[in-house]
Amino acid sequence: MTVDEVNAFLARDFPGTSNNCAEVGPGWAVARIDTSEIGLRPGGIISGPTVFGVCDGALYYACFTVLGIEPMALTSELSIRFLRPARGTELRARADLQSVGRRSLVGNVVSWTDDIERPVAVAQGTYVRPPTPG
Amino acid sequence: MTVDEVNAFLARDFPGTSNNCAEVGPGWAVARIDTSEIGLRPGGIISGPTVFGVCDGALYYACFTVLGIEPMALTSELSIRFLRPARGTELRARADLQSVGRRSLVGNVVSWTDDIERPVAVAQGTYVRPPTPG
Amino acid sequence: MTVDEVNAFLARDFPGTSNNCAEVGPGWAVARIDTSEIGLRPGGIISGPTVFGVCDGALYYACFTVLGIEPMALTSELSIRFLRPARGTELRARADLQSVGRRSLVGNVVSWTDDIERPVAVAQGTYVRPPTPG
Amino acid sequence: MTVDEVNAFLARDFPGTSNNCAEVGPGWAVARIDTSEIGLRPGGIISGPTVFGVCDGALYYACFTVLGIEPMALTSELSIRFLRPARGTELRARADLQSVGRRSLVGNVVSWTDDIERPVAVAQGTYVRPPTPG
Repeated sequence: MTVDEVNAFLARDFPGTSNNCAEVGPGWAVARIDTSEIGLRPGGIISGPTVFGVCDGALYYACFTVLGIEPMALTSELSIRFLRPARGTELRARADLQSVGRRSLVGNVVSWTDDIERPVAVAQGTYVRPPTPG
Repeated sequence: MTVDEVNAFLARDFPGTSNNCAEVGPGWAVARIDTSEIGLRPGGIISGPTVFGVCDGALYYACFTVLGIEPMALTSELSIRFLRPARGTELRARADLQSVGRRSLVGNVVSWTDDIERPVAVAQGTYVRPPTPG
Repeated sequence: MTVDEVNAFLARDFPGTSNNCAEVGPGWAVARIDTSEIGLRPGGIISGPTVFGVCDGALYYACFTVLGIEPMALTSELSIRFLRPARGTELRARADLQSVGRRSLVGNVVSWTDDIERPVAVAQGTYVRPPTPG
Repeated sequence: MTVDEVNAFLARDFPGTSNNCAEVGPGWAVARIDTSEIGLRPGGIISGPTVFGVCDGALYYACFTVLGIEPMALTSELSIRFLRPARGTELRARADLQSVGRRSLVGNVVSWTDDIERPVAVAQGTYVRPPTPG
């Protein structure tokens, strides 16, 4: 699966989203949001839900590397820790799968803006596979 | 503190947000998003980050009932469970504070669309008070 | 279902546990640990895993009020916030179910020692029902 | 800091604990519980609070690699996902710090029994540094 394939899917299923895929590899992915495309809070702070969204997106794309592009993979639960106010020209998150089970996939996520050494958030969450017909 | 005061603050500090305050009381608040104002996924599904946003907003407004309107109250961490796909004409979340400490406030949140008996997500999270100057 | 029924089950399936059921009602339960039966840290502090255990137990017993006594109900995930050091002669937790779905049950938990007004931890978690044979 | 130093501290501050340190390195640690020393459920299943305890211990020891042996480092919050029933002769968890801030440290944890390829739980959590006197 390639970055272009993920982004073609996003353009079709999530029209108008500013969240796209920047990198993928086996069991991991990087999501990216261009902060010029989204509303910022006074002081140029990127909102918490936007940071949640880039983390959730990265985990979704990481699941694709195992499941194929699977629109019906759904977030079951996610816990997120905000480490510092997020400011910068772009927002990224990298997700790494930690467990791939029959029913669910669990991954770790880290998000940063311009300095990867200073993450803005860390998350862990679960995606469930769609039920198999039968 | 009134609903109108919260919404006047949001209009000033979060221009263009579709997330507003619908109800407040001592230690609790209801946030609301009009889903006609946001992008939906195919099938009319409200995205996970949008559901996160309404939960986070409700907890923010609930903190205001203790702290006053405090822009610098920040989400420290939040864990969210998605219970079913979110479809409907509006999205709401109610937050109830469970603990008010010197440094942080913890609350429970439940989110629903048209049927309050069928919640779309449940969350729990922590807001930190801004540091007091000294 | 009565408190005595839950405790008879615990004596059989969890021999030697110091975690028992103190109260139950529809959709909720209170778990209790006698701190004289467990090891404490210097300063008389109850350990984090013990506090986790009383919260997890309360949620288990709350699920029993819906499922019946179901040994194979399993914790799927739980997030816990520790609010202050836990000291006292007994440790309690109350769980309230927030959502009862076909596959899983989600509940809120609060834990305290001698002063219910000063909780030592707050949690939220998910139990999964056992798969139905068929 | 060495494994022996951590275990000498545990013997002193947590007398009787079955949770000890098996490995440490910069920003990471492995905790270990000998399951012959703890009560098991029917079927030989290790309880959820025990799995929580080994994860929490691993994160505590990982913090020591940054803070030194600091008894007053406290778990602020932890979210844990249980992936499969835990059975085996020993239980281990490895924690890796993801973020080291002025006030708190965040890390990822994975726990397994006899087969490291089949983790029994994955967690993420926050420890807070003790306040500095001043």
